[in-house]
Amino acid sequence: MRNICLTLSYDGTDYHGWQRQPNARTLEATFAGTVEKILDHDVKICAGARTDSGVHAMGQVVNFRTDKGLDRQSLTRGLNSLLPRDIRVRDASDGDEAFHARYSAKSKTYVYCILNRPCNSPFLARYVLHFPHRLDVGQMKSALEFIRGEHDFSAFKKKDEVYRSTVREVRRAALAAKGEMVYVIVEATGFLRYMMRNIVGTLIEVGQGRMDGEGFKEVLDSLAREKAGPTAPAHGLFLRGIKY
Amino acid sequence: MRNICLTLSYDGTDYHGWQRQPNARTLEATFAGTVEKILDHDVKICAGARTDSGVHAMGQVVNFRTDKGLDRQSLTRGLNSLLPRDIRVRDASDGDEAFHARYSAKSKTYVYCILNRPCNSPFLARYVLHFPHRLDVGQMKSALEFIRGEHDFSAFKKKDEVYRSTVREVRRAALAAKGEMVYVIVEATGFLRYMMRNIVGTLIEVGQGRMDGEGFKEVLDSLAREKAGPTAPAHGLFLRGIKY
Repeated sequence: MRNICLTLSYDGTDYHGWQRQPNARTLEATFAGTVEKILDHDVKICAGARTDSGVHAMGQVVNFRTDKGLDRQSLTRGLNSLLPRDIRVRDASDGDEAFHARYSAKSKTYVYCILNRPCNSPFLARYVLHFPHRLDVGQMKSALEFIRGEHDFSAFKKKDEVYRSTVREVRRAALAAKGEMVYVIVEATGFLRYMMRNIVGTLIEVGQGRMDGEGFKEVLDSLAREKAGPTAPAHGLFLRGIKY
Repeated sequence: MRNICLTLSYDGTDYHGWQRQPNARTLEATFAGTVEKILDHDVKICAGARTDSGVHAMGQVVNFRTDKGLDRQSLTRGLNSLLPRDIRVRDASDGDEAFHARYSAKSKTYVYCILNRPCNSPFLARYVLHFPHRLDVGQMKSALEFIRGEHDFSAFKKKDEVYRSTVREVRRAALAAKGEMVYVIVEATGFLRYMMRNIVGTLIEVGQGRMDGEGFKEVLDSLAREKAGPTAPAHGLFLRGIKY
């Protein structure tokens, strides 16, 4: 049995997230349906990250099993010709037998994009949080440093979501300001649901001077979701890639 | 009477071009309707360029007259709060009495965007021509040089479109390759309908080796539309700006 591994990019705007649900258009159902059309048998698609409704991906990784002898170029071309244009297969390969897009992942990287200028852009509006007021990027940078390393991220989880452990290890946390764009980049061994968006929502409080770096650290240490800022909207968030 | 001058950006994907038409959603009708809601009187909007169906703008310029005393910030904010998010007012000012967005224009600049790589991008698909095969950018550059200066551009006009004169002056013609993107930038005193898209369609013939720079010049000199390449699709084209 072959274990096919694909890298996907998608615009999540018109999907109710990755994971299949009844009565909703999801990336998993759309993608699996297309793979099944090409392979002519049922497939179980495993995704490296189950992105939420409206979240985009530059480097989602999926795997599935098949006996079909299609070469990777034919598979990629076939899928890209049948998929809606907001989902693209960037790369295909044969994975090891044991490879599992989710369980084999060593870390995931997300990027959150903020357009910080008075007027939004009609071309970027689907992909950025438009924030028209001044942001103190220096303060945001200092605050973000506190999430590096291993922490209990309960303060940044989705309310009422229950986990065996809320400890995650952040391997990289960086804030890059390029012109009018501010990028928040976080690589971690795993993410709690809404963790990235709640970190960004709280960083924006810092950027507005409502909280300083130390205040941000207090939020993290409090383990209390109600101390953190609002959840930043989904459409500014991209799954950038997954390391194995 | 005030003569208000605005700079607009828009994503033309969901519009049948700038110019008002019966039974079609156009930028002019959408924009004028919003201005009229704010000013509470009818307006005649003049646009610097009447972009075709599907064409985008980074710097469209419009003007209209009113007696209302709204300051430019209130006008910009009011319009941006009521306009659909694919149209944004970037700037507002009071123009001279004689200023006319179309007739006062000294030159217009268009940019055509080509994504030259095997796989399209779900994020750029609305804004680029995806061209998966190799392009000889050097040859395209040499060919493009021939359009500089004053020429009869009949070979690149829309078939059956009639003009008093088909002579236009190209002030700048540049091709910039940045990573997987190729940008064709043309500034001219005026553009015939489809001129930019027919130039790009013909340049792509050059990039594929079907024609060399001299062949491109022969097409230009022939004044014969049927010698030129196909019309490149509208969605890769942006009105970048207008000089006055």
